[in-house]
Amino acid sequence: MYRTHTCGALRASDINTEVTLSGWVSKHRDKGFMIWVDLRDRYGITQLIFDEERTDKAVFETAKNLGREFVIQVKGKVIEREAKNNNIPTGDIEVLVETLTVLNRSEVPPFTIEDETDGGEDIRMKYRYLDIRRNPVKNNLLFRHKVAQEVRNYLSAQDFCEVETPYLIKSTPEGARDFVVPSRMNPGEFYALPQSPQTFKQLLMVGGMDRYFQIVKCFRDEDLRADRQPEFTQIDCEMAFVDQEDVMNTFEGMTKHLLKSVHNIDVKEFPRLTFEEAMRKYGNDKPDIRFGMEFGELNAVAQHKDFVVFNNSELVVGIAVPGAASYSRKEIDALIDWVKRPQVGASGMVYCKYEANDTYKSSVDKFFDQTDLKAWAEITGAKEGDLILVLSGPANKTRAQLSALRMELGNRLGLRKSNEFAPLWVVDFPLFEYDEESGRFHAMHHPFTSPKKEDISLLETDPGKVRANAYDMVLNGNEIGGGSIRIHDKETQQLMFKHLGFTPEQAQEQFGFLMNAFQYGAPPHGGLAFGLDRLVAILGGQETIRDFIAFPKNNSGRDVMIDAPSTIDQEQLNELSISLIQK
Amino acid sequence: MYRTHTCGALRASDINTEVTLSGWVSKHRDKGFMIWVDLRDRYGITQLIFDEERTDKAVFETAKNLGREFVIQVKGKVIEREAKNNNIPTGDIEVLVETLTVLNRSEVPPFTIEDETDGGEDIRMKYRYLDIRRNPVKNNLLFRHKVAQEVRNYLSAQDFCEVETPYLIKSTPEGARDFVVPSRMNPGEFYALPQSPQTFKQLLMVGGMDRYFQIVKCFRDEDLRADRQPEFTQIDCEMAFVDQEDVMNTFEGMTKHLLKSVHNIDVKEFPRLTFEEAMRKYGNDKPDIRFGMEFGELNAVAQHKDFVVFNNSELVVGIAVPGAASYSRKEIDALIDWVKRPQVGASGMVYCKYEANDTYKSSVDKFFDQTDLKAWAEITGAKEGDLILVLSGPANKTRAQLSALRMELGNRLGLRKSNEFAPLWVVDFPLFEYDEESGRFHAMHHPFTSPKKEDISLLETDPGKVRANAYDMVLNGNEIGGGSIRIHDKETQQLMFKHLGFTPEQAQEQFGFLMNAFQYGAPPHGGLAFGLDRLVAILGGQETIRDFIAFPKNNSGRDVMIDAPSTIDQEQLNELSISLIQK
Repeated sequence: MYRTHTCGALRASDINTEVTLSGWVSKHRDKGFMIWVDLRDRYGITQLIFDEERTDKAVFETAKNLGREFVIQVKGKVIEREAKNNNIPTGDIEVLVETLTVLNRSEVPPFTIEDETDGGEDIRMKYRYLDIRRNPVKNNLLFRHKVAQEVRNYLSAQDFCEVETPYLIKSTPEGARDFVVPSRMNPGEFYALPQSPQTFKQLLMVGGMDRYFQIVKCFRDEDLRADRQPEFTQIDCEMAFVDQEDVMNTFEGMTKHLLKSVHNIDVKEFPRLTFEEAMRKYGNDKPDIRFGMEFGELNAVAQHKDFVVFNNSELVVGIAVPGAASYSRKEIDALIDWVKRPQVGASGMVYCKYEANDTYKSSVDKFFDQTDLKAWAEITGAKEGDLILVLSGPANKTRAQLSALRMELGNRLGLRKSNEFAPLWVVDFPLFEYDEESGRFHAMHHPFTSPKKEDISLLETDPGKVRANAYDMVLNGNEIGGGSIRIHDKETQQLMFKHLGFTPEQAQEQFGFLMNAFQYGAPPHGGLAFGLDRLVAILGGQETIRDFIAFPKNNSGRDVMIDAPSTIDQEQLNELSISLIQK
Repeated sequence: MYRTHTCGALRASDINTEVTLSGWVSKHRDKGFMIWVDLRDRYGITQLIFDEERTDKAVFETAKNLGREFVIQVKGKVIEREAKNNNIPTGDIEVLVETLTVLNRSEVPPFTIEDETDGGEDIRMKYRYLDIRRNPVKNNLLFRHKVAQEVRNYLSAQDFCEVETPYLIKSTPEGARDFVVPSRMNPGEFYALPQSPQTFKQLLMVGGMDRYFQIVKCFRDEDLRADRQPEFTQIDCEMAFVDQEDVMNTFEGMTKHLLKSVHNIDVKEFPRLTFEEAMRKYGNDKPDIRFGMEFGELNAVAQHKDFVVFNNSELVVGIAVPGAASYSRKEIDALIDWVKRPQVGASGMVYCKYEANDTYKSSVDKFFDQTDLKAWAEITGAKEGDLILVLSGPANKTRAQLSALRMELGNRLGLRKSNEFAPLWVVDFPLFEYDEESGRFHAMHHPFTSPKKEDISLLETDPGKVRANAYDMVLNGNEIGGGSIRIHDKETQQLMFKHLGFTPEQAQEQFGFLMNAFQYGAPPHGGLAFGLDRLVAILGGQETIRDFIAFPKNNSGRDVMIDAPSTIDQEQLNELSISLIQK
C-alpha cells in the first residue's frame, strides 16, 4: 500500500499514529542537522521532518539528496509541530520520518510549481502536466467537476435524461465552419463533428424524449479569437410541451442552484431586459449589471444647438462615471485616446464634470450652458462629483463604443467584483441579422428558432423587425446561455430556410431528415445551451476559459504539449482516399 | 401552459381535478357515441374519453378525426374509470375531455409505435426518432442515464474528479486505425480523434490529478463487426499511488454499487481467475460463470489408447452438458454439425452419454471401455443423465471451439439468465501476444501496461511468457472493463516500445511527450476503463449495444437517419488543402 493517508488528511488528533504517505517533494529545507520537506499531493501538503538524532543515518542521507518534485513514499510517526502553520489544515502536525523510498526522481522542472509561478503561458502550456500540479490550475479543474456534477444532479432530479448524441454527423454549410472527418469505409464522403447537438436534440423531442440534457463537446473550425477554443463544452438542454416561460424558469432555477451550491449565494428572481432595452441601456446584449453607468440618450437636449458634431449624429449618448469629476486633464485625455483606439473606433469624446455647488464644466462649454449640462446630468443620472462622458455617431456603432468604455471603466473602478454575481435574461432578440458582406439575412440564433406569432406577418415585409422566441442568460457581462422556442412544423421551417436564402432543394438535402421528422407529430419544444467553459470560469470569478480547461489549445488551434495537429503517413492518406494539396 | 400533469401522473386521488394534458395519440377507439384515446408521453399513458352526451359537439367531431401520433392538448376532468386497468399506473382514472387542441398532425407512421413493432431494423433506424417513442428504446435510454448518473455519483463520492480531455489530438499508428480531422489552420496537418484518453489520463496522474474519471466518447476506424460502433463511450478512470489491489477494490465497489442501485442485487466478493485458469477452465478470457460446464482436460485418460485422433492432438478436452444424455442421435448430429461450421471450425466431436446405472455409451466405444469413460465423467464433472462432449486438436484452437459450444449450449439450455449477474476478475494477462501475420509481438492491452516485476527478466529471453499487471472485469461472458498498472518511468517505457518494434526515433516522435513527462516525477499509477455501451446493455439484461444508443450507426458506419457520411463542397476541400483520390 502506497499510503495510509493523503497529504491533506492528518490533524492534531492523529498525533502518535504511524502513517504512510506518498507525494511530491514541494519544498526541501536543509538546516544541516535537520531537514524539512513539504510533501504535496492533490489533497494538500504535509510537513515531513528528518532529524540527525532521531532519523536513521541512511534515511537522513537519502533525504539530503531529495530534489524538488521527486516522488517519495515515507513511513513515520505523526508528531506535534513546534511552529504551527495556521495557513494549511495539516499545520498542527508533522511526520517524523522513519523510512523513505524514492518512487521516482525528477529533473529540475522548467518552472516553479507554486501558486505564483515564474513560468510564462507558453512554457506552462508545453508542460501542462506540471502546470496542473499548481493549486490555481488544479483547483479550477476540481471546481469545474463540482459545477458539472451539480448541473447533472439538479437536472436529473428534475427528471431530465442525459442522452448521448453522435459525434460523427453530417456537414452542413449553415453556421460556422465544420471540422470534417474523412470516411475510409465510404470513400469520398466525410463526417462532420457537431457544432452543437441542435438537430439531434430536436429529433429527441420528436421522439418523445422530453427533458433531455447533455454535457457535450462541440466543435467549430473558426479563426480563433483570443480565448476561443476549437473544441468547447456545452450544457445542452431541450424540453417538449413548453413555452418560453417554462424553459426560463427551469434554467433560472438551475443557475440559482449553482450559485447556492458552489458559493452559498442566494439570488433573487433574474431581471429581464428585451434586446432593445439592453442595447439602449448598455449598448450591449450581454450587459454587466453589477454596476450602473446606464446610458443616457441626449439627442433631445444636446442636438439643435450649435455643436455640429452632435447635430449630425444619429445618436448622442452618455454615461456618468461615479466620482470621476476629479480626473485631471491628462487622465481625461487618456480616456479620449482610449476610445479613439482602432479597437473601439470613436472619433472623439465630449466630457462634462459635475462639480461642487451644482456647477458643470465641460469640453463643449462654448455650445452648452449650465442648464443644458444639468439636463445631461439628469438624463445620465450623474451626481455631484461624477464625470459625464458623451459619444455620438451612428446609433449601433456609438452604443458599441460607449459599451466598451463603460466596461473598461467598470474594470478600472473595481466595479466588476469577482465575488458578486448578477444574472439576468435578455429576451425578444431579432430573428435575423443583416449581413452587409453577403447582402442577406442570417439567423441571429440559428435557423430553428421560431418567430414570435405576432411578428410572422412581418416576415415578408420587414424581416429585420421580426422578433424571435429567443432568450439569453447573461452573467457578469457574459452570455452564459442562449436558447429559443423552436419551429416544430415543416411549413414554418421551410419558410425560414427560404428567408435564409436556401433553395427548397438545398433545404431538403441538408435538413430533410428534420423536416420529415416534423411530419410525424412533432411536439412544441424549446431549450437552451450553456457554454460550460465560460460558465465555470465566471462562476470561478475569472474570465479566461483556458484556465478552466485541462489541455487547451493555443490561438492557432495547436496543442503544444502533444504537438498536434501533425502530419500523417501517406498510407493513412491513401486509405482515406484523399491527398494533400500543396499551396 | 401546455400541461398541468404528465400522462403518467394522475391517480385515483386526482378524481374531480381539472387537468391539462399534452401528448401523442397512441390509440384511438371510436365506438360511435364514445371515443377513447390513449394519450402518451415520456412518462406514461392516460386514457381520454369523449362522450357524445357529455362532450361539446365540435370537440367530439375533432376527436373523431384524430389520427395515430397526432400531438394534442386536452383540458378536462379526471373521473373514475369503469373498467380499471391494473397494467398501468394511471389505470384507475380517465379524463373526460372538455377542450381539445391539435398541436400538430402526423402522417401515418412507417411502423407501429408499440412495444412489439412491425418495423424491421432498417426502417426503425431510418426513423429512429419514431423508434425512440417506443417503450423498449425509451426505457433503455432512461436506464443508460441512470447507470451513468450512478457511476458519477459513486466516483464523485470517492473523491474522483471528472476531467475533460481533448477530442482533437495527435494520430499515432499504434493500436487501431485513427479517425483523422484535417486542420484548416495548419495545412497538411491532421488531428486524430482519440481511441481512448489513455495518454491524457496518464499525464493527469503526472500532473497530480489523482483519482480522475471521465465518461467520454472514443473513436476507432475499424472494419465494423456486428455490434461494434465507430464511436463508443468509455468510463475512463485512473488513480495515482495505487497497486493492482487498490484499483480492483475501487471498481469492484463501483460495480457492486451499480448492481445494488439499478437492480437491488447484492453480490459477494468477485471471484478471480488468472488468464491461464480462465483459458483452461472456460477456453475464454471472459468466461460466463453463471453456469458450470467447466472444461475437463482428458489427455491423461484419453490418449495412449488406440484412438489416433486423440493421440495426435495437443489437447483433448470435454464438457458435461447437464441432462443431455437423452439427446437423440439426430440432436447430437446437429451439435456435431454446429461445431463443424466454419465459424467454429472443429473437425469432429466425440460424445459420451452417462446413462442410468453408471453405464456409459459413447461414439468411440470401440476404443474406450467403461472405466475409461467413467474417468471422463469424473474429470468433466458429469453426473448421471449428462452428455459429455469432447473436442481435440491444437490447444488454443480447441479451447476456443469448446468455449463457443459451451456458450451456445448455455443459451440453448436457458442457463444464461438475463436477470442473473455473475461478475469476476481475470488477472495476470500476458504482456504481449504474438501476431503471426506481422511476425512480431503486440501489446495485449496497450504499450503503457507494466510487466510484472518478477517477469521482467523474461523480457529479453521469452517475451511471450511475461505477465502484465493487467486485469479485466468480466460480467456474464463479456469483458466490461479492462485496465492495468502503468509503466511510470522512461526507461521501462522505452524498453517496452523497443520490444514492440519501435525505433527509438519513432517512439520519441509519437510518445515523446509522455516519456518526457515521466522525467518530472511521475507517480506510480494505474486505472481501468469500462465500455459503457456494453455495460449498460448487460446490466439491462441484453447484449445488443445498438439498442442502448440513441442514434447508432449501421455496419458500414453510416447514420441512415441523417444520411452521414456525405460528400462535402469543393470549397470545403480547398480550404482544408486536401483533394479526393478517385479509385
